[in-house]
Amino acid sequence: MRAEIIATGTELLSGGVLDTNSLFLSEELLTIGMETLFKTIVGDDEKNIEEALQRAMQRVDVVIITGGIGPTEDDITRKVIAKVLKRRLLLHEDALKTIQAKLAGRDFSVVNDRQALLPAGARILANPVGIAPGFILDEDGTFIAVLPGVPREMEAMFVSGLRPALEERFGGRLFIRRRILRTCGMSESAINQSIQDILKSEAPVVGLTAKETGVDIRIVVTESSAERAQSLMDRTETSVRQKLGDFIFGLDGQEMEEVVGAMLSQRRLKIAIAESCTGGLISARFTNIAGSSEYFEHGVVAYSNQAKIEMLGVPGETLERFGAVSRETALAMAQGLRRTARTDLGLSVTGIAGPGGGSADKPVGLVYIGLDSAQGAKAVEYKFLGNRQQVRLKASQMALDTVRRYLIV
Amino acid sequence: MRAEIIATGTELLSGGVLDTNSLFLSEELLTIGMETLFKTIVGDDEKNIEEALQRAMQRVDVVIITGGIGPTEDDITRKVIAKVLKRRLLLHEDALKTIQAKLAGRDFSVVNDRQALLPAGARILANPVGIAPGFILDEDGTFIAVLPGVPREMEAMFVSGLRPALEERFGGRLFIRRRILRTCGMSESAINQSIQDILKSEAPVVGLTAKETGVDIRIVVTESSAERAQSLMDRTETSVRQKLGDFIFGLDGQEMEEVVGAMLSQRRLKIAIAESCTGGLISARFTNIAGSSEYFEHGVVAYSNQAKIEMLGVPGETLERFGAVSRETALAMAQGLRRTARTDLGLSVTGIAGPGGGSADKPVGLVYIGLDSAQGAKAVEYKFLGNRQQVRLKASQMALDTVRRYLIV
Repeated sequence: MRAEIIATGTELLSGGVLDTNSLFLSEELLTIGMETLFKTIVGDDEKNIEEALQRAMQRVDVVIITGGIGPTEDDITRKVIAKVLKRRLLLHEDALKTIQAKLAGRDFSVVNDRQALLPAGARILANPVGIAPGFILDEDGTFIAVLPGVPREMEAMFVSGLRPALEERFGGRLFIRRRILRTCGMSESAINQSIQDILKSEAPVVGLTAKETGVDIRIVVTESSAERAQSLMDRTETSVRQKLGDFIFGLDGQEMEEVVGAMLSQRRLKIAIAESCTGGLISARFTNIAGSSEYFEHGVVAYSNQAKIEMLGVPGETLERFGAVSRETALAMAQGLRRTARTDLGLSVTGIAGPGGGSADKPVGLVYIGLDSAQGAKAVEYKFLGNRQQVRLKASQMALDTVRRYLIV
Repeated sequence: MRAEIIATGTELLSGGVLDTNSLFLSEELLTIGMETLFKTIVGDDEKNIEEALQRAMQRVDVVIITGGIGPTEDDITRKVIAKVLKRRLLLHEDALKTIQAKLAGRDFSVVNDRQALLPAGARILANPVGIAPGFILDEDGTFIAVLPGVPREMEAMFVSGLRPALEERFGGRLFIRRRILRTCGMSESAINQSIQDILKSEAPVVGLTAKETGVDIRIVVTESSAERAQSLMDRTETSVRQKLGDFIFGLDGQEMEEVVGAMLSQRRLKIAIAESCTGGLISARFTNIAGSSEYFEHGVVAYSNQAKIEMLGVPGETLERFGAVSRETALAMAQGLRRTARTDLGLSVTGIAGPGGGSADKPVGLVYIGLDSAQGAKAVEYKFLGNRQQVRLKASQMALDTVRRYLIV
């Protein structure tokens, strides 16, 4: 089944408000076998909503409209739908009673009654957390649903009313599974080359999304039974994993700091972090995870040479001879840190984030990542592309990945 | 002028990724006199992108497409546009040279060349921060622009290439000025009350956007001459500043860390940071600014009590008697830090970011911010609402603001 989501509301076009409803809905629809082909955002404008609805009815089976069903002047969704479907707006007695009951004893205003004016033939969707009811309609085989724009109300109404209605009407035909394999350390074009056969297949649908922190591989499987869907998903994941191996660090929404945190926690290891060019970003990412105090001992942001000497015990001679951005300094930072912190692991990063500070020898983007453990210390050189923020983010991801790779050996 | 934004990318339909590009673009278009009527999101699917583009060309004057211009198999925007406009895809020599120059000396793969295959007649938009070029096309009076999907690249390309091109093509009729006054420490409703007369005016258009880090006040002025626009803008800014005073910390895209960094740099002061619940976030924000090594001495992320004692010299007795989250500990952290770092300022943050760790006495969101200087130490208690990430972000903003307020006195 193909779906389109139409989000209405002028604030979504240029009022600084992000449409998060459509994301929630498309994810939910996928789990009941519906693929969202289009999301359209349109202002509180009669003509444009009309145009969007007509278009959607031509190209999909299920149209979900959010927003515009409140009590105010610019809540025009009900009116537009009635017009497009050539149905009358009728006062829905049950809806009216519910609205009045909800508002009993409150500031009541007659404009709220308007929310019970629904296109003829509409089936009510109760609003568990707000006032305005939603509704569903069947029009020549197109299923149309209308939900509130307030995310909390929309979600509650979807779960309690619309999802069951969709399952009743369309359920049992297609089974969709979705999985994201997250990678670090391999470029988008390298991944593309390595799994191009899989990317070209029609089923499953496999796609790539490049982020600063790595490339995500999305797999979507559509099958006629749950078993077939699961089996194709598992086979596809296995093929991708055979090609990419350890470059895959996590699944779906998992962040690198979660994955590494869970590994440290499970192994009961403690870590300390010494950062120069990343300036606290790695510590901030580690501690963004609830429960990180279990494995995160402390962090030092040693920006100046003085701090590297005093806080981390880097020998002044090392800094003088090799420079603050060098393999030797990265090693000394990790070792000195681990010694004072008395942790299992000491992670260090030193580099040139730019825009200034680069030279022919040591260009912007040059970063050394060091790791000290009971097995000894090592440091690796990287060259990251991008501006200051990108270099810092990429370096933080690679530093976390260095810990991950140490832990999976 | 009427615009439509088409965001392409399967991850935007059901990959858990929010389309933030369209919001940026519609806000920017508004400032050059263009109204966005529709935003359409469509997957990496040839037929559906084709359908969306054809539809958009029928209903608006300017179509902006984001995404799908990278080097991989599912980057099909170039191909679809060529098909819809019935133009050939040609290898654009200048674009190819630029791509190869950017990749020189790095892992180079021939698939990147694909990014220089553009529809005949396309005018290149340079990519200041990434590889793939964007482009613009004129088709029977419809202006079509194609930008990357990566937000940072998209924004840079819009500012450096597309905005000037749009202004050249459509500009000159109206003079629009836009300014954002950024505030910290005042709620949206308090600001709403304080400047309600200004908010209600038809011209200029003034609106509020609440963020975790404070409330932005957007002023948009549209006038028939540049002088009138500038003069109305200046008068409006003055009125807002009279009402809100020091709560305004910056203009337009300025971040708090830039403002505070510039003040420290100008006064030639050095700062050190001791963080507990913010876990490195404040150091990371400070050092995100180029040139921060001038004033940022070092940072300590002292998560454990042990670290607070050893790295910051907080007396064990203080921790025992008042707890790690207390005014006394915040004071001792700031003082101990400033003593060892020998800086002009020592900033400390300790609190409960949640979700665990709260109690009736010390709930999640309780944060103490301490500042030590030659004028002595003080610490202030805050209670922030929200989840772990929100509490951390709000605490980091307030800590930076504490330094700002110290420096403006």
